[in-house]
Amino acid sequence: MADLDQQLNFLIEIDRLKSVYRQNLVKSDNNRNENSAEHSWHISMVANTLHQYAAEPVDISRVIHMLLIHDIVEIDAGDTFAFADAGQQEAQENKEIAAATRLFGLLPDQQFLATKNLWLEFEAAKTADARFAKAMDRLLPLLQNMANDGGSWVQHGVSKSQVIKRNQFLEGLSPELWDYALGQIQLAVENGWLTD
Amino acid sequence: MADLDQQLNFLIEIDRLKSVYRQNLVKSDNNRNENSAEHSWHISMVANTLHQYAAEPVDISRVIHMLLIHDIVEIDAGDTFAFADAGQQEAQENKEIAAATRLFGLLPDQQFLATKNLWLEFEAAKTADARFAKAMDRLLPLLQNMANDGGSWVQHGVSKSQVIKRNQFLEGLSPELWDYALGQIQLAVENGWLTD
Repeated sequence: MADLDQQLNFLIEIDRLKSVYRQNLVKSDNNRNENSAEHSWHISMVANTLHQYAAEPVDISRVIHMLLIHDIVEIDAGDTFAFADAGQQEAQENKEIAAATRLFGLLPDQQFLATKNLWLEFEAAKTADARFAKAMDRLLPLLQNMANDGGSWVQHGVSKSQVIKRNQFLEGLSPELWDYALGQIQLAVENGWLTD
Repeated sequence: MADLDQQLNFLIEIDRLKSVYRQNLVKSDNNRNENSAEHSWHISMVANTLHQYAAEPVDISRVIHMLLIHDIVEIDAGDTFAFADAGQQEAQENKEIAAATRLFGLLPDQQFLATKNLWLEFEAAKTADARFAKAMDRLLPLLQNMANDGGSWVQHGVSKSQVIKRNQFLEGLSPELWDYALGQIQLAVENGWLTD
């Protein structure tokens, strides 16, 4: 198949990310669940707007590329709730690796490898770019839940320590954003949106 | 207000793009209407995947930045159907300029100016980056409608000449994609999805 046909097949296939729903709620749209396509847009905007706070410089175009593709594997693997248990998360990882091979594998070889490697880099969260991308992905639901009377935290009875653990990435990466997050988490406890 | 507070306000405000619905349909999700946030993600992926076909080189990170922000004005101005009449389109333009000032104006000054200027550059479609971004924004609904038995074309009785005119941007920008689009448009007429 010609490169262009492969690329267009891929672009039509990923339309399906719009039907993968997350636990997060969209306040402006009657609190329906958020889908992973619109989340991927939002998180790209978050990274783009806040990258000045990265303690270690990041290549923002790589970060955005990572965030645009980070959830595409969910088309095959589905979404797992952020606070799922370790067993569920490990099973999910295996499904996601197979999904990355099938979905990014729709692209021509060179683009397939570059895209899969970028996704693996994001998942491993070792490089500065990947760590910053991951930190943003964890910060956004906090911002959304705080703007929405606790949102999915309240629905699922999430605790303060779970949210702190999930956002701990920020601590070294961006002291300013970490301070902000800690303040918000404390406020959420006071408001009864997180259990103490 | 501190820069960070302004930036976080902006990032929460743009959550509302998830409740702006377009005429385009999401095939994978029971043919519900597509919203402008998930569209903005998809079009960023299209540009990222196809930029090798730009006849004149483009700065893909600028193109993607344009596409991530291109529809944010719809939060205040709403979406206008691609094939609305000239009077409607002019009224829409005025609403969008006011929306750009209010919404991007939530950001700190320097970021506000940079973002508004990038949006104006996209709208003017004069630079290579903006023209390529615009061409992608017009190509994607064609791909989606072709994958969906004519989709919104059939719903609204759109004609071949309207779609050709709307995609004509591609002609000089990317001969390969233009050829592809023309072939698809012809096929759509044969399938009865576009009027001749």
